[in-house]
Amino acid sequence: MSKKYDNRCPVGRTINAIGDGWSVLILRDLFLNEACKFQDFQQSLPKIVPSTLSHRLKRLEADNLIEREVYEEHPIRVQYKLTKKGKSLGPIMLALKKWGEQNP
Amino acid sequence: MSKKYDNRCPVGRTINAIGDGWSVLILRDLFLNEACKFQDFQQSLPKIVPSTLSHRLKRLEADNLIEREVYEEHPIRVQYKLTKKGKSLGPIMLALKKWGEQNP
Repeated sequence: MSKKYDNRCPVGRTINAIGDGWSVLILRDLFLNEACKFQDFQQSLPKIVPSTLSHRLKRLEADNLIEREVYEEHPIRVQYKLTKKGKSLGPIMLALKKWGEQNP
Repeated sequence: MSKKYDNRCPVGRTINAIGDGWSVLILRDLFLNEACKFQDFQQSLPKIVPSTLSHRLKRLEADNLIEREVYEEHPIRVQYKLTKKGKSLGPIMLALKKWGEQNP
């Protein structure tokens, strides 16, 4: 977890955990779709650079907000899901969505 | 308002409006204190560079989330307050605070 913002404040702590806007949109996709592959995020977020997407996924995984599932198929299939901790961000996601709907 | 994220999605729209973590913490200070001077933000956010603070205040003002009040005293006093639109971010701020409290 990055400690850019003051961790003693609960708001700062949450921002440190969530990260930047891309991370919020990755989490949004997982609230909407349950499981996503790397390519699903690329389709949903066409402006994100692959290395940025990869970095954000690793950070969210390191912070235990998402988990990576690997299926031993041919070719190997990797998908991402919210963890229990990630799902606990639901009220924040809903508040962000509601404000955006009220401010078109 | 920056259009970095997809404005067609309400979550993306909200992130575009709020901006980055520093902006969230500036807004937090105004939820906690009603009115703040530039130096108040500097005290509350000791790691922020003055030019970054200045830029974030201008952006939040341009997006009509905060307003600048100038008092013609000697020396001139400038303070910032939330606008009505800024106050409407209250539920987001509360959700961020609550999650941080539940994840110490």
